[in-house]
This record gives sequence, structure tokens and C-alpha cells, in this order.
Amino acid sequence: MQLFNKHKEVIYEALEALSSRNFNTIYSDNPKEYPEEDAESGLTAFQMKLNTDFVELQVNSEEWIGEEVSPYLQSGTGIRYPYQTPDVLIRNAKESWKMWRNVDVEERSGVLMEALERIKERFFELSYATMHTTGQGFTMAFQAAGPHACDRALEAIALGFTELKRYPEQVKWEKWIGGKAIPVQKNYKPIPRGISLIIACSTFPTWNSFPGIFASLITGNPVIVKPHPKAVLPLAITISEIRKVLKESGFRSDTIQLGVDSGMNPLAKTLAEHEDIKLIDYTGNSQFGQYLETLHNKITFTEKASLNPVIIDSTKDIEALVSNIAFSVSLYSRQMCTAPQNIYVPETGIKVKDGYVSFDDFCDRLKNALDDLLDKKWGPATLGCVQNDHTVKRVEGVSMAVGKTISDAKEFKMPDFKTARTRSIKVLAVDSGKQEIFQKEVFGPMVFVIKTESTSKSIELALRGAETFGAITCLVYSNEFLLNKEIEERFNQAFIPVSFNLTGNIFVNQHAAFSDFHGTGGNVSGNASFVDPNFINKRYVWVGNRYMN
Amino acid sequence: MQLFNKHKEVIYEALEALSSRNFNTIYSDNPKEYPEEDAESGLTAFQMKLNTDFVELQVNSEEWIGEEVSPYLQSGTGIRYPYQTPDVLIRNAKESWKMWRNVDVEERSGVLMEALERIKERFFELSYATMHTTGQGFTMAFQAAGPHACDRALEAIALGFTELKRYPEQVKWEKWIGGKAIPVQKNYKPIPRGISLIIACSTFPTWNSFPGIFASLITGNPVIVKPHPKAVLPLAITISEIRKVLKESGFRSDTIQLGVDSGMNPLAKTLAEHEDIKLIDYTGNSQFGQYLETLHNKITFTEKASLNPVIIDSTKDIEALVSNIAFSVSLYSRQMCTAPQNIYVPETGIKVKDGYVSFDDFCDRLKNALDDLLDKKWGPATLGCVQNDHTVKRVEGVSMAVGKTISDAKEFKMPDFKTARTRSIKVLAVDSGKQEIFQKEVFGPMVFVIKTESTSKSIELALRGAETFGAITCLVYSNEFLLNKEIEERFNQAFIPVSFNLTGNIFVNQHAAFSDFHGTGGNVSGNASFVDPNFINKRYVWVGNRYMN
Repeated sequence: MQLFNKHKEVIYEALEALSSRNFNTIYSDNPKEYPEEDAESGLTAFQMKLNTDFVELQVNSEEWIGEEVSPYLQSGTGIRYPYQTPDVLIRNAKESWKMWRNVDVEERSGVLMEALERIKERFFELSYATMHTTGQGFTMAFQAAGPHACDRALEAIALGFTELKRYPEQVKWEKWIGGKAIPVQKNYKPIPRGISLIIACSTFPTWNSFPGIFASLITGNPVIVKPHPKAVLPLAITISEIRKVLKESGFRSDTIQLGVDSGMNPLAKTLAEHEDIKLIDYTGNSQFGQYLETLHNKITFTEKASLNPVIIDSTKDIEALVSNIAFSVSLYSRQMCTAPQNIYVPETGIKVKDGYVSFDDFCDRLKNALDDLLDKKWGPATLGCVQNDHTVKRVEGVSMAVGKTISDAKEFKMPDFKTARTRSIKVLAVDSGKQEIFQKEVFGPMVFVIKTESTSKSIELALRGAETFGAITCLVYSNEFLLNKEIEERFNQAFIPVSFNLTGNIFVNQHAAFSDFHGTGGNVSGNASFVDPNFINKRYVWVGNRYMN
Repeated sequence: MQLFNKHKEVIYEALEALSSRNFNTIYSDNPKEYPEEDAESGLTAFQMKLNTDFVELQVNSEEWIGEEVSPYLQSGTGIRYPYQTPDVLIRNAKESWKMWRNVDVEERSGVLMEALERIKERFFELSYATMHTTGQGFTMAFQAAGPHACDRALEAIALGFTELKRYPEQVKWEKWIGGKAIPVQKNYKPIPRGISLIIACSTFPTWNSFPGIFASLITGNPVIVKPHPKAVLPLAITISEIRKVLKESGFRSDTIQLGVDSGMNPLAKTLAEHEDIKLIDYTGNSQFGQYLETLHNKITFTEKASLNPVIIDSTKDIEALVSNIAFSVSLYSRQMCTAPQNIYVPETGIKVKDGYVSFDDFCDRLKNALDDLLDKKWGPATLGCVQNDHTVKRVEGVSMAVGKTISDAKEFKMPDFKTARTRSIKVLAVDSGKQEIFQKEVFGPMVFVIKTESTSKSIELALRGAETFGAITCLVYSNEFLLNKEIEERFNQAFIPVSFNLTGNIFVNQHAAFSDFHGTGGNVSGNASFVDPNFINKRYVWVGNRYMN
């Protein structure tokens, strides 16, 4: 209870924010607000990890494996992690569960909050670990892997805290029968579902995994994290910290385990199908996600591919519009699940204060904005690296012949890293008839600008794509109140959220914890939402018992 | 809003009870507390329905069908209902949804509460309708079909009311960037999932359907109820009342529809697989339930077969114990999903104050208690009728040769109904080795008394059966505190609730709304729980939108 008392204010504030949906954050996402020496010591700590065995998990293993490759260096990091068979992982999880399931939610929340505090101490090291596995630029790596991931973790902790306390532990119930009260003593228990498997992705290893990890832990389930073999280090670091706090607090560190595999011998399927795995959180491609969703007797929380549209009709400020979109698509070379892919512009142009910006003019402006951004001092770091060669090839595979090249994907110089795998954003203008080209996810540094007959047609196409392939975001620029309401209504009915007229430093890619849900769980891009009540409540079962004397 | 203001106190009280889990009820379950003339006018109203077309639904149809048979009269009721094709039902539901989805939750809750008030006016008619379709005795038919079903409906309304108001409709969110607050206007909407199909059963047509009906309606989904062809009338009456209130309030009556089918041309599968059906509530056999649970892109709420155990170790009052069990198994001839089937007694006997009650002695006492009960004036009505011949044959199909007959199932006289399909409770004592006999559901008037080596063995067998075939209840008699805690722990881990030492007028079959969850959703007897947060929250999706100027 000591740790709970230490952290309860933060949990209560988070709960308040979760209800009010107002701005809230646990740790600053500005690296400059941290002690100056942290940056250097973080870098050193990361460098010390290179070409060593990662022993911090305190796992004894006879087999150590690792195949991470830095997208900046394009060479292996040489870090190896302890391999454990699925059976060993499951056995350890079961053993740890005996204790963890019986810990009350106050204590669990205290332990988990303390773990976040320890993770905070390693934000800079974590940034470098994230850069050199995902390819993100430093600032994004810092923000997404550290403070923003912790915000999402706190969301799960806080919502779990309140949901598990929804019903009284004990109640004396009385029924009056024939003028006499008959008492029955009742209790109510939130019983955890069982072992939770988290299948992480290569682009946002901590951000996309923390919600599931902390939601499962706060509800009393043991966790096995199966990282992407190319993005293990950020999870190894953070899981080590959680394990240390568990151990210090008298619990088994195996309450959370890292279950590494390799590209040659993947374990996700074996683990997912194991009868003792009851909960599965997954971020990744649609095919494997759909397979997981159909597994019998598993409760799944998925985030799969998406096809996020931008619909442009009119604007008060064309420059702000173009610059906002350019930044959104540049961020991490469009390797974010929330990044726009298809930009719909009517052939009649975009209505502005004093006339129209033509389709071709918009394309030129977008190209210029992208070029300008890359030319800025912070440009290359905004784009970062492409995580893997498949992504490069996928984008290269889209033939220029199908439309008009606005901007081709080119390598650009990454300061300090001559070997970085970089690509500028490819922009292809296509006619709305080319649906076979743009109505599918092309994950990576490319966007389509689609010329449509009218905004009505843009809406129709955007909706068709989003309904068929899923959408996590939708961005609309329009000054027409009624049109906006219509778009909101129609996309919301398809369970897709809409952002309108974003300019300045608010980007469609970024979902603010405590305020914005990430994913709705209602369209084919995934069946889960960070962090709505279902994300917590499906992880345990209410059981009530009755006692008479 | 008028109806909301009229009913809001009841909703707020229900919400309070749902949290405190204290006793709460909306309508008295004692028929004597209703105006004297109601009983007679209810009977008349029911009799007037016989051999007529049920026009109250105000549905135009060219085909009228009906095949209900009264288990009391063993002759057809002659009531016919308007048949509509699945396509017509779906089209009507979609059309009605356009309006209902946009109604705010206050207004929805007012309309639904008003519908319960109207249903209350027909409690007696509903009782006779329930008697002559399910075979229940009058008192149970009154209680379960009327007030208790309305309590479960109110649970769903109240929980829906509060969950849909969990997040603000609008919020002005502000992020401080560079000393300046950047405002974003956000809204949050609970978007209903889509058309809800309720597949009802023949034994508790209203009680088991009301939670799903009202949960779907309060969350904005249109409902199609597919009744069991042998138990339509109780749903036809209640749905008519809901439709009338919807119409009076300016909404489409087709927001809820009755979709009848026949034994020869069942429609459950066709409807369930229809792409526009998004939610399915089901009560019935395990095979069809499991099939529904595996349907892709459907959210299912199931209640299937169960194998409810009684474990007897020791007691302070053997007579109260025997009488409690005798009543529980007699109630509606053990056609309740909550009724015990397997009674485990150690071969060393049941420990009582001054020694042991032997296994054989217990069997004799149970037989005598069952006989005594049936001899009482209210005995036959407590057992009621067996709903259908399959149930009779199923029980007859269990060979006496496998154990020792304690009591055979015999026809008994039902006052006023010479033709009633009745059976007393068959009791078979078997050795614990005969698992192939008792480790499966034998729905209907029979129980097994199982002789085990010890209470430990009883626990093991009871748990094995419950884990394999599901359990909705478990009843334990024991004075040992530590043993009880162990049983509670082990059964709860299998997501099975336990009731201890029930005597007097508290029976394991009865789950009190607002206090007891019905089903946990965690074991194979079903994936839903009346009414936990998941039962509401899985029926809609939170979607948030963001606006900048």
C-alpha cells in the first residue's frame, strides 16, 4: 500500500481526466524539460548495450538470440536476449499468477505506477533504443516510446483501478419475506481471465504494447510480451523495469515476461493457440490479425492495417492546410497507423476565401511543403528512417505510370548517419477511377492525391475505402457546417472518428491520451480502442458468491 | 423528456442498487399485492386470445402462423402471428434505426420505462400466456415473466443510461504549446452497433430475452426478437406494448419486431448470418450457441447448457438443507438453467451436529421431501408441467440400471388440468465412477445423487463437470470455513459463482436482479452476464471527433 499512497494522486487525476476528457499527461514530452545530463547518460547506456547479452531481465537461458538491425546504421546491434520456450513462458506465467491474481487493485496500481516512474528514468536510453530499432527520429522516439506510452499505460491503470472497484467487496443483502428480513452475505470478485499475450510491432514497440500490458496487469493477469524480432530493445528495457519493481515489491518478476523469437522461428502462432493463453493484444498486419480474431475461446484486442483518408473541400487558410498535411505525412516517413494515405481533392479545386486553389496547384503546394520540410534543420529527423526494406520495396512497387508523379521517393541525407535507410515522401496524383491502386494500404512513405468529380464523390470513395480496409483517422477540411455534420455522421456510423480543419501543431496522427480514443474497435482496422471500458472489462469476469449461516 | 422525468427516480434508484448490490425491485412479485380484479381480467384477456390472430403487433402480413401447444391442455392454443420474411424484418429495422439511433439516452430510457409500466398492466395475462406455453406454474409464471423480467430490463436500462453518459458530449480541450493554449473542440458519441437479434427459448421467453432486448434498445440498436415457435405469446404481448409506447412517443414501432418462424422452417440461422445483424442474444442448447459464438463479425451474448452441482459436506440443519434442495429441484420440474442436477455426497455421510447422516439416509430424506412437497396443496403448481415431450423422453432415457432408483418420474395430478404433461422428479443414486452418466446435462425433472469417496473428490468431480459442460450455479453445504474458502476460490477461478448453506426461502435457482449476476460469461455455460458492464458496452462504440476553426 506504500506505493499506492505514493502514486494515488496521479491515478485520481488520471481518472478525472479520463471522464472529463481534458488535457492530461504524466510526464513532459519535451526532452528539454529533463536534466541536461540525462541525454548523454541515456546515449551512453544505449551504447553500452550494443553487442552484449541483455541480462537485465534476470532470466537464465541457455540460448541467447537477437537479430535487430539499426535503420540508421543498417548493421546489427549485436544485442542478444534470453530465449525461453513457450512452455517455459506459460509455466512461469501460471506460477506468477497465483500471487498476482490475489493482490488488491490498490497495490497493483501502486506497483505499476512505480514501474512507470522507473521507466521515466530511462526515457533517453529508451529513445535511442527506439530510434535504432524502429528508425524513428529522436524527438518522436522520445515522445512516443516514453511519455506518450506512459500516458496510455496510466489510462489503463486508472480505468482498471476504478472498474475493479465498481462493486463492493462485501454486502449484506436482505429480502423481506412475510414481514421478516432474510439476510444473505454476498461478495463480488473481479476474476482475471488468464495469461495475456502481447504481440508487438516493429514500428511502435512500446506505445502500441503498453495499453495491453498495463490493462492486463492491473486486472490481475500475467503477461507474456512477444516482441517483433527487429524491435526488442525498447520492450526489454521497459519490461526489465517492471520486473524489478515487481520483485522489490515481493511479487514474482515473471508476472511479466519477454518471449523473444526470431524471423526464422516465429512463435506468435504457437503462443496464441496455446490453451492457457486467454487474452491476446496484437498490432500488425491485417491477415494475422484476422486469424487471431477468429481463434476460439480467445479474447482479442487488435490493431491492423488502415486506409486513412483526407477529404479537402474548402479552407480559410490553404497554407496552414498544406503545411499541416505535409507534416502529418512526413512524420516517421508515414509509418504511423494514424497517418493519412489518400488525399481527396475535387477537380474543381479547393474553395478558398477569394476563389479556388486548383487540383494541380494543390499538388505543387504539397510537393513544395514536403521539400521545404525536408530542407529544414529538423526535417530529416522528422522523417526518420524506413524501418525495413519491405516498406521501401512496397512503395517502389507502386508504378508511377498509373498517375502523375508529383514527388518521387528519394534517399536523403540523415545528419550523423551516412548509412541511414531514408526515403522522402512519394506523391502520386491519380484519377478517382484508379481505385485498384489507392484503395489498399501502402504502408510507408507515399501518399495519393486523388482527383474526384466533387466533394460528394470524395466522401463516397473515402468511406468505401475506410469501410472495406479500415480507418483509424479521417481528416477533413471544409468550412461548410452542414457538410461537416454530414461527414461526421456518415463516418461515425462506420465507426470512424473525424478531425476537422487541423492546422498548426495539432496533427491527425496524434491521439492525445485521456482525451482521444485510439481506434474505435468498430471498423476493420481493429477490434479494440485505447482505452475504452471494453479494453479493461473484457480482461476479467465478475463473480459473486452468496453465504447464509 | 416527459417520460424520462416521469420515470427518472426509478432509474436513479436502480443505478444506486446496481452499485450497492442491495435489494431492489421495481414491481412486487406477489400476485396478491395487485388489485383483485386483475387476476380475472388477465385470465379473460388470455382466453380471448385463444384461436385468434394476434393483431396487437399491428403488422400487416399475408401469412399468419402459430404452433404453440399448452403443456397444461396438450392441445394447440390456436393463436397465429404475422409472419415476415427476414429481408422485410431487416429492412424495417434499418428504417426504424435512422430515428432511434439519434434519440438521446434520457428519452430512450423514458420510453423503455414507460413500456415496462404498460407491461405491468398485463402481468396476469402474461402469466397465463407463460403458463400455457412454457408449462410453468402460475406463481413462477407470474414472477419470472413479469416482475423479475422487468427487474432485469430495468438493470439494462439503468446501466445503459449511466454508461452512455460516461463521457461528455462536448469538451474544449487545450494543449499548451510554446506558452500558448491551442484549443480543440471535441465531441464523444456512443454509436450503436446495428441490428440486434434476440433468439428466445421455450422455457423463459421473457425473462431470458428482456435483458438483451432492453440493453440493445437503450444503446440505440433496433431489435428483432425470434421467439421459440412454441413460446411466442409472452413475447408477442410484451413486444406489442413496447411497440405501442414507441409509436405514441413518435418513434417507429418497428424499432422492435417479432420475427416468428416455425419448427419446419426455422429462421434463427438465416437471421444470425445476415450481414446486417451485428448483435445476437441467445438462450438455448449448447450446440447452436457455440455455432453462434464462432460467427465472424457478430457480437454474441449466449446462455447455453449447464451442469450445476451441489456439494454436501456438513450442515447445522439437515432438514432445512433437504427441504431447500427438494424445492430447488422441484421448481418448474427442474427446467431452470440455474437448477442443480448433480448432488455430491460423501460415502461417509453428511456431518451433522451429533454425528453423520448416511448417504442412504440422505437419499431417503430427499425422496420424502420431494414426495411431501408434491403432496402439498401448492406442490403440483411448484413443479408445473414439462414443456415438451423431448424433455420427458430425455429423462426417461436415463437407465435406472446404472444406479439405485431413489424416486422414479411419475405423472401426477395437476388440479384443474387433467391433460397436463407432468412428471415428478426422478432421483438416481450413482457411484462416482459413472461419470459418463452424470457428467452431462439432463435437462428436465431428474437429479443424480453421487456417492463420492470424500468431499475432496466431490469438489474435483463437480469442478470437472462444471469446467467441461459449464455451470451457472453451484451450491455448497459445509460448516468448515477453510473448506468453503477453498471451494469459493477454486470455483471462482473457473468463473463459477458459489452459494453456501442456502436454507429457508432463498434458493440457488433464483438470482436477484441488481444484486446477483446471472451467469458470469466466463465458463462454457455462456459468454454473457446479466447485467455486467460488458453486456451493455459491447453493444455500441465510442467515437470521438475533433474540430479546429
